[in-house]
Amino acid sequence: MLSNIIRPTLILNESTCKANIARMADKARDSGVIFRPHFKTHQSVEVGQWFRESGVEAITVSSASMAAEFAEAGWRDITIAFPVNIREMNLLSKLASDVSLNLLVDSLDAVEHLRTGLKATAGVFIEVDCGYGRSGLIAGITETIDSLIKRIDSSQNLIFKGFLTHSGNTYKAERIEEIREIYHHDIDQLRQLKKSYINDFPNIITSIGDTPACSIVDDLSKADEIRPGNFVYYDLMQYALGVCSINDIAASVACPVTGIYHERNELVIYGGAIHLSKESVMLPSLIFGLIVKYTEEGWTHPLPDTSLISLSQEHGIIKTSPEIIKTINNGDLLGVLPVHSCLTANLLKGQDINILST
Amino acid sequence: MLSNIIRPTLILNESTCKANIARMADKARDSGVIFRPHFKTHQSVEVGQWFRESGVEAITVSSASMAAEFAEAGWRDITIAFPVNIREMNLLSKLASDVSLNLLVDSLDAVEHLRTGLKATAGVFIEVDCGYGRSGLIAGITETIDSLIKRIDSSQNLIFKGFLTHSGNTYKAERIEEIREIYHHDIDQLRQLKKSYINDFPNIITSIGDTPACSIVDDLSKADEIRPGNFVYYDLMQYALGVCSINDIAASVACPVTGIYHERNELVIYGGAIHLSKESVMLPSLIFGLIVKYTEEGWTHPLPDTSLISLSQEHGIIKTSPEIIKTINNGDLLGVLPVHSCLTANLLKGQDINILST
Repeated sequence: MLSNIIRPTLILNESTCKANIARMADKARDSGVIFRPHFKTHQSVEVGQWFRESGVEAITVSSASMAAEFAEAGWRDITIAFPVNIREMNLLSKLASDVSLNLLVDSLDAVEHLRTGLKATAGVFIEVDCGYGRSGLIAGITETIDSLIKRIDSSQNLIFKGFLTHSGNTYKAERIEEIREIYHHDIDQLRQLKKSYINDFPNIITSIGDTPACSIVDDLSKADEIRPGNFVYYDLMQYALGVCSINDIAASVACPVTGIYHERNELVIYGGAIHLSKESVMLPSLIFGLIVKYTEEGWTHPLPDTSLISLSQEHGIIKTSPEIIKTINNGDLLGVLPVHSCLTANLLKGQDINILST
Repeated sequence: MLSNIIRPTLILNESTCKANIARMADKARDSGVIFRPHFKTHQSVEVGQWFRESGVEAITVSSASMAAEFAEAGWRDITIAFPVNIREMNLLSKLASDVSLNLLVDSLDAVEHLRTGLKATAGVFIEVDCGYGRSGLIAGITETIDSLIKRIDSSQNLIFKGFLTHSGNTYKAERIEEIREIYHHDIDQLRQLKKSYINDFPNIITSIGDTPACSIVDDLSKADEIRPGNFVYYDLMQYALGVCSINDIAASVACPVTGIYHERNELVIYGGAIHLSKESVMLPSLIFGLIVKYTEEGWTHPLPDTSLISLSQEHGIIKTSPEIIKTINNGDLLGVLPVHSCLTANLLKGQDINILST
């Protein structure tokens, strides 16, 4: 299969990917929580099918367009984990009439738009900002939360579903212990809110789920639902955080070698920012990827003293050692382990998916 | 038109864009150099047409796939300014038979592959690394250059076209004067090479052309051909370099506002790394974009004390002032001036192009 690859191409290691899915599905089952994986990482109908085979029926996406793609592919229970974009009301109405749809709100204004604009019934989560500082209401602002819930409850087309957060600050943790602390801090805030409203709304749930916390915390039973996404492929950012091992990374980008520069121990590959994204990570210096060679069974460990040190639109520059550069020929395929697999998979999503089955 | 926009959408200011094209085309004409603009920035057949209207017939692209797209759109003289990717030999052969094609080589190995693999005639430039350190042969390695030229000249399907460089180090210049110095240093190296071979190859040319140098240097007549690309839209990176004015930026991304957070003077927009790219610039702190409002005629100056300070996959966080946040409503469209328009336009290239005609 690799011999047919002529330009930068996403390569999945099927067994690693399925192991990542099974591990998280098992943990959710053992913890007694709903597993509603985020599909924004892979955005692939085929990988979605692997989740279905491990028992998943409910999913998370990050846009109405992505919800429409997966509704088209047969998914019937979808949460759009992004604050309602009221300019897409027509699409949201269509989705709400086609599937069991959950939306996020964090303002009265959004609720009012849904009350008057949404032409079918949808579930509504209140998004809570437990400390990440992106979107959501601060848990302590109970007056606003109260009034949102009242307006949701009194509307004919909205069903109050509970409290949801994304603890994106775990991605910036400096120690593993900090990831655990953020998880417990945030889920405790959601549980406190749930406790205040459970008598009036016996079906509400708490929903949490970034990949770092869901990977690191062994017992997730404090939550009712988890929504991790990145874990399906993992990447160097998660590896650098200490959240996965290098062998858990299930996606790489096969890139043709187009230049060999012995005098500076550098290679140029066809593979740049429009294939990999400009996301970088300190590992230990600032890099855009680690480099592997493909084997019969998948790919090797990252080559020692070798990394992707620079990216322009279509070129990547790999710094390597005199020993390794001798083993590389013009036209060879090298694999790049991506820094941020969500962005890389998004850039390459127009391609047919390439799977190494082992 | 803007009222129909429901998700992150590239918006071009047609008059600004055409003025950018006309200015560069005029400068090339005045300098007596061939204007072979790089189409990797816009990747748009429609914008390509604007170049054609200003007299352009020869273009530059950065991949064989992009060459195929523009060949399909009727362009007949194309340079692929990327070291030959020998895995794409079949596509290169097809392109060489369909259009007047120029390729880049910087190794004997690449020349040998072209000699045996390319099934039609193509022009070949020797790529020279004048100091950028990405791809190309060092100008001083005359022995290697000699042997490449001999092998090109003795092949039936290759025509030696001359010497080409990309001075990408101008993007990192700290002073305008440094951009000029790089230009003169690099074109002098190419001219020296040309001088050594002009007797045997009277038609060879020198080709140079990054946007910073082509924008800043008034008289480009030392070169035979220029290949700038980014200038068609410019962006905040060029603005920060001092290469364009803020009014020369011809592309913005319209993003719906989905959250307003008065307590921290922040807005959340639907517009993230998969729309804008993760490219950032110091202006004066690290930002991912400046923010404009749309008007009847285009867009305003960037809003004061307002910038895009953080990006995740689909969310952008804008930091602004208490005065400005009061003027924004949920569902409004804000414009983001991109940091690197090439990457942004690439991310949004599946869309119909949206043009503000003024």
